[in-house]
Formats: sequence, C-alpha cells, structure tokens
Amino acid sequence: MILKKRKLVTIVIEASLAHRLEEDVIDCGAKGFTSSIAHGAGPRNQRVSDIEGGNVRIETVVSEEVLEKILEKLKTDYFPLYALSCWVSDVEVVRDERY
Amino acid sequence: MILKKRKLVTIVIEASLAHRLEEDVIDCGAKGFTSSIAHGAGPRNQRVSDIEGGNVRIETVVSEEVLEKILEKLKTDYFPLYALSCWVSDVEVVRDERY
Amino acid sequence: MILKKRKLVTIVIEASLAHRLEEDVIDCGAKGFTSSIAHGAGPRNQRVSDIEGGNVRIETVVSEEVLEKILEKLKTDYFPLYALSCWVSDVEVVRDERY
Repeated sequence: MILKKRKLVTIVIEASLAHRLEEDVIDCGAKGFTSSIAHGAGPRNQRVSDIEGGNVRIETVVSEEVLEKILEKLKTDYFPLYALSCWVSDVEVVRDERY
Repeated sequence: MILKKRKLVTIVIEASLAHRLEEDVIDCGAKGFTSSIAHGAGPRNQRVSDIEGGNVRIETVVSEEVLEKILEKLKTDYFPLYALSCWVSDVEVVRDERY
Repeated sequence: MILKKRKLVTIVIEASLAHRLEEDVIDCGAKGFTSSIAHGAGPRNQRVSDIEGGNVRIETVVSEEVLEKILEKLKTDYFPLYALSCWVSDVEVVRDERY
C-alpha cells in the first residue's frame, strides 16, 4: 500500500495550557490532534503534574510546512515560559488528505 | 545491543469501535497492542469524542507483513465508514519474538 | 529550525512496576519521562491489565548513551521477570539541553 510521509509532533504540556495549545496547533494548519492525560517528571526534577492536575500529551500529524509553523509558535509563545516537552518523528499515512 | 526493525502502527478511533479493532489487529497477526483513552479533533473539525465518549489510541508493533494486513483491513472495513486516524513509524525492538 | 537527534524509548509495563521503572529510567540518565495509563494484550494473549489494574506506558527521550543504559537495565532486571513491551524510535528535538 502506498504511504505518504508526514511529521508526527508530540508535545507534553501542563493540563491548564493544553486547550490553548490545541487551538494554536490547529491555527498553524494541523487538521487534527489527539490528546491523552499523562504525568511525568522533567529536567527540573519536579513532578509538577502531581500537584497541578496532570499533563496532557498532544499529538498531531502534519506536513513539513505546518511543522515549521508549530515549532515557531512553541519557540515564541511557549518555550520561554513553560516546561513543555516536544519531539518530532517521521511517520507515514495512508490517507494523506487528512493530514 | 542488537535491535530488530519493526513497524509501529498507531490508530485513533472512537471508543465504541476500539474493542472490535483490537480484535481485528490480533486477527491480522499482531501479537499484542496497547490502548489508551484519548480525545481529539479531526479534519471535519468535530470533537466527536467529547460527545460520544472519547477516542481510543491503539498502538501495535508488527512486522511489515502484518502491517500490510492491518492497512488492508482498515482500507476495506474502517476508512470508508469511520473517522479514524492512522500513522505508521519505524521502530526497533530488543526482543523480536514478541512482535 | 535546527533539530537535534535523540531516541524515544516507549515501555509498556504493568502499573505496579511503573514507579520503580520510572526511577530506574532517571537513574540511567534520562532527564524526564511521560507516563500514561493504558491497557492491552501481549503475546501470551492475556489481558493482564484488565485483572491487575492496568498498564502504564512510559516514554522518555534520551541520548544514544542513555538508551544503551536503559536497555541494559531492562535486559537484566525486567525482561527475565516481567511481560513488558519496549520499542525505540528516532526523534528530533528543538531544545537538546532538555534530553
């Protein structure tokens, strides 16, 4: 089956910021996202989520162009202020019109 | 450590269909799966999950051969009818007899 | 945007062992992790999680060096005893000092 290349962006952020980030991801051009509740510890060795209501793990499958926009948004509006984590991987999709 | 190449298939589907899809994934030859509760929005800009009881995010690590069978199953029995998302990525595993 | 290469390690383990494994992952040099509740079935075709309180899906983004330490830890202390799953994939990160 022919698959098309896309980028999977995974962002882990405190729950209170998740809805705003989901909207920003859509505004950057993502056609959808998937979010799950998570907890964790980051480089500052704080289990912030245990105190403040958990983290949310947001995934979105996007084009290279939308990836760049999301990373720019994170760089300007999130990274300087919040302890979110973000990683990007190569994925393939069957129905490319969805992403 | 020597790692073996496999394919990670991630499928996000409405919760009411998750159990059926998990069974189909096993029938295609997957030796296991991992499922988590999720919510999200898709290309139709509907938060279906908020209304109908959420989505489930199903992951399975499989061989190329089993991947093809799963994608065929999705193509014939799911994609025409349901708003699921699916993406595939390359992963490596330590204990290849498990996948 | 310039991205740095890292390894994403995903481990699915029964919930009762998750906290111990999270600590081991940090001891191996990981600077953080993200955990989510999950359920699933493995090669032994047992839905262990339905009986014993679920699985936890632990993710950590690490360097190659830390990856090797985590895999060694799993090989010696976990794989011989427990039914965990583990897979590794290539990811890219923006802020490499965090991983």
